[in-house]
Formats: sequence, structure tokens, C-alpha cells
Amino acid sequence: MPSHKNIKDGWFRETTALWPGQAMSLQVQEILHHEKSLFQDVLVFKSTNHGNVLVLDGVIQATEWDEFSYQEMIAHLPLMAHKNPKNILVIGGGDGGVLREIVKHPEVESVTLVEIDEAVIRVSKQFLPDMAKGFYHPKVTVVVGDGFKYLKDNVGAFDVIITDSSDPVGPADVLFGEGFYALMKKSLKTGGIVCTQGECQWLHLPLIKQVLESSRLLYPTVAYAWASVPTYPCGNMGFILCCNEEGRDLSRPLRIFPPEKEETRYYTAEVHAAAFVLPAFTRKGLGLPSK
Amino acid sequence: MPSHKNIKDGWFRETTALWPGQAMSLQVQEILHHEKSLFQDVLVFKSTNHGNVLVLDGVIQATEWDEFSYQEMIAHLPLMAHKNPKNILVIGGGDGGVLREIVKHPEVESVTLVEIDEAVIRVSKQFLPDMAKGFYHPKVTVVVGDGFKYLKDNVGAFDVIITDSSDPVGPADVLFGEGFYALMKKSLKTGGIVCTQGECQWLHLPLIKQVLESSRLLYPTVAYAWASVPTYPCGNMGFILCCNEEGRDLSRPLRIFPPEKEETRYYTAEVHAAAFVLPAFTRKGLGLPSK
Repeated sequence: MPSHKNIKDGWFRETTALWPGQAMSLQVQEILHHEKSLFQDVLVFKSTNHGNVLVLDGVIQATEWDEFSYQEMIAHLPLMAHKNPKNILVIGGGDGGVLREIVKHPEVESVTLVEIDEAVIRVSKQFLPDMAKGFYHPKVTVVVGDGFKYLKDNVGAFDVIITDSSDPVGPADVLFGEGFYALMKKSLKTGGIVCTQGECQWLHLPLIKQVLESSRLLYPTVAYAWASVPTYPCGNMGFILCCNEEGRDLSRPLRIFPPEKEETRYYTAEVHAAAFVLPAFTRKGLGLPSK
Repeated sequence: MPSHKNIKDGWFRETTALWPGQAMSLQVQEILHHEKSLFQDVLVFKSTNHGNVLVLDGVIQATEWDEFSYQEMIAHLPLMAHKNPKNILVIGGGDGGVLREIVKHPEVESVTLVEIDEAVIRVSKQFLPDMAKGFYHPKVTVVVGDGFKYLKDNVGAFDVIITDSSDPVGPADVLFGEGFYALMKKSLKTGGIVCTQGECQWLHLPLIKQVLESSRLLYPTVAYAWASVPTYPCGNMGFILCCNEEGRDLSRPLRIFPPEKEETRYYTAEVHAAAFVLPAFTRKGLGLPSK
């Protein structure tokens, strides 16, 4: 049986300097895949209770059990807040789950996914089929390459840009910098929205504050939202949304999925609005006025 | 140095049959206290990053780092939804944190806390002083005893009853049964509200559904809310609220804390309303209509 440095006595344990002193553990039934790709350590294991689990550089990226809340929220928050999202860019997102959500919007005409690490796409297609089914939709184009370069080559091309990245260490570090937000802005059409994974308000308020403040220098509308994702640190994942149009209320969805179609398992119009309501300590830590 | 069965290689790991295949771990700096009380295994350790941690029967009850979100929500949701909460009963809550929150309401005239295990009160006073300070407020009375018996002896006495219990195994098992909700109802005054810890929507929807359904046979108004609590399983804790008055909207706070006083770190009036917004899968699992 293959081994992995994070797996011991049948349990995977997630420890990193990004959340010192706490660790999520998941029980392992079987290691399905392990490789060192060109960019990172890629692990997929079958867990006892949470389906198959994708791990990059020792950090849980998605479990089949709870991935839907993250994928739905990072996709539907910006798409539902946009008046008419036709051309969408996803940077990262190599498991395909965000694609699966984006193509649920009939308004969408094209989705391009730019993932730097082909290994993530390859193993997701093999071991995370319910996420990777997004890759097979006719509106989807996949580019294996650098998101920075792709943005530079595609100015003014997108209604919505979603950055579904790993944490700001390793290959995703640059995706939290001001330069990246400036590039995304240039690649947006008028009224365009970007949505990036926004780390955890319980752990990373100074980082989040810094990203929000530098974004406000570039975008007239900036907001922070969050969702419950059990297998992310603290069970809590944030989203940073920026719009190049002034005075937009991104907490208000402009369309709804017909409830009877049950398109989503986490997202609803009510959940959309509630996701922008921040606890008192978050508002304080981000320098927002008390409410 | 004292030892504990859940602590190995300097880490406390929380595993129970209530959330199979997943485990939260916290790094231990020092075991401060360990005893077998009359009711349960009581452990307090100093963690490296999350302050002092109270553990009962191997399950994390509170860390000094994140306890505020749970304590504030279980206290302020029912008290702010009540028109004029004067007489309050807390069942369980032996760490004192809920008391600390309740006495922030100037309307409150008396709070009685009935905790079955004196050991929890004793060790909290010693090792969790910021929670236990609730015990020293002049409006507070502490009874070491059985919540069932106390309810039977105090019919029609309370405006709000809060059950801050451990999980439905061990001494708290009976607190999730229909008999307990019937007893609480008899001890409420007109317009009274009960609020109980409501487990985790990611893990325990069938149990939550059962408690909500049996509560609806007793109370004309029943609702479910949740909050982000990182060191609880899935980082997610629910609350079951019942009111003996018909047609009450418990998601609407009837008063606010003056924002400039910064009485709370998690709770705000907006957070109150948003806590009742449930993800699609929760609504479905609880048999509520899609939204």
C-alpha cells in the first residue's frame, strides 16, 4: 500500500503553518493516488465517511462529501450578482467543481478554465467524477497554463472571473497580490465581477483586510462573504468579491434558480444575502463600522 | 505530567461515534486538570493556540479562543427574540459563559443555572475565568442538580430557558427527548422561549428533524438557527428555538445592543436574522419547502 507523510495509523492529518495548533483529520480507507507534480504534492484518498478526498501540498482541497457548499458559493455568488454573465474565466479550479456549477446558468455562453497543474485535472477526472463532469460540458474550454499570462492575453474579455485557488503558499501565493487583482480588472468587461477564495475569517483577518484594502484601490465595489465548509480550516471559507461598477450591492442576487429544479444543495437566494452578513469580530478586524 | 487517552504526541484528538471518520485535533501545551467526576471524564488543557480548552467525555466543549460565538448565539438569539426577558433558566452551561452573556441584557432580573455536574463549575472557575465570571454576577443563582427535577418544581416561572448541554450521549441524552421539551414548556411564562443546542446540520439532520418535529407538537413556533464555531464538529453549531406563542418570528431581534458598546464579538442584529437562513440541503433534510 502506498504511504504519505500526512497519513498515520489510518488517518490523514492536515497540519500547516497557516493554522497552527489545529488539525483536521479524516479517516483513510485507501490511498488512491499520490504523485509529485511539477508544482505540488498531489494526493487522493478514499475516506471512510467523506468520499474521495483531494489533497494538495498536504492541504484538503475538496471532499466528495462537502465540496458542494464551496463550489456553489464561489460560482453562484458572482454569477447571480451579475446582470448577464456570458463569458466566464476560472483560474485554478482544476477539480472541475466550479465548472459544474457555472454551466447551470443558462445565460453563460463560454467558460474558460486556466489551471497551472495538469495533474489536478487528470486525477480529478479519474477520482472525483462528480466534480470533474464540469470539464465535459460543451461550453467549457480548458487551458493548462499560467493564469497571469492568460489574463494579460485576454483584456476586456470576461463578465465574471473566479479564482479557485489553494492557499497563499506555493503556486497560489501570487494570486493574493495586488498585481493579480489589477490584471483581473483589465480582463473584465464593464459591470464585471471577480470572486476569489477569501481564506478564513477566524484565522486570516489581517491577510483578508490587506487584500480587501488593496482591492478597494482598484475596484469601486468590494465585499466579503463566507460559507460553511466542514473540511476547510475552522469549517469556514470566505470569498472576496469585486465589481468594476460603482454602487453595486453584490449581496443581492439578480436572478434565482427555480427552487423546484433543485439545482443547488447549499446556495439559495436567501443564503446568498446571508453570506455577506459578517460577525462583529470580522467587521472589526476588517476595519468596517460596527452594526 | 498527567496523561489522557485522547492526547498523544502532544495533540488532543477528538473522536466519537457521533462524527465518524473525522476528528478535530488541538495541540496541547499542558494538561491543567483531569478527573472522573460523578458524571463524566473532565479534562482541561492549555493549548498552544486556542487558549484553555474544556473537554467532557472526550468532546471539546469550549476553547477560550472561539467560545464567544456559541455562548453569544445560544444566549442572545432567544433573549433578543423575547419581548421582555426577566427571569431566565439555564440548564447545563456549567462553564458560565452563557451566564456572562445573559447578564448583558438590562431587562434580566434573575438567572438560575442548573448544572448536574459540580466538577464542570469548579474547574471552569479555576481554569476558564473569562467564561466563569458569569457566576459572580449578583443576578445569578447556581443550583447543582437535575434540570428535569428543577423544571418540575418551577412551573410557569421563566421567560427564557436555555439548554446548554453536551451531546446526546452520556448525561445529556435525555435533554434531546420529547419529555424534556414538554417539561420546559410547562416552566415557561406566556410568550416564553426555549433555546437548546441543536447539534450540527452537516452530521445530525435526522436527529434535528426528529427534535423539531416533536417540538412542533408542543410549541406553536419552532425554528432552527446556526453559527460558525470552529472547534465544534464541522465548525458548525445549531440552535433549536421554540416559543409558546403563535406566529412569532424568532429570526427578528426585538432590541439591539448599542453598537458602540461592543457588547458582543459574534452576535449583531444582522447576524441574528442571518442565522436562521438555512442551506438548501438543510431545508430539504428537515422537510422544509425549497426556497
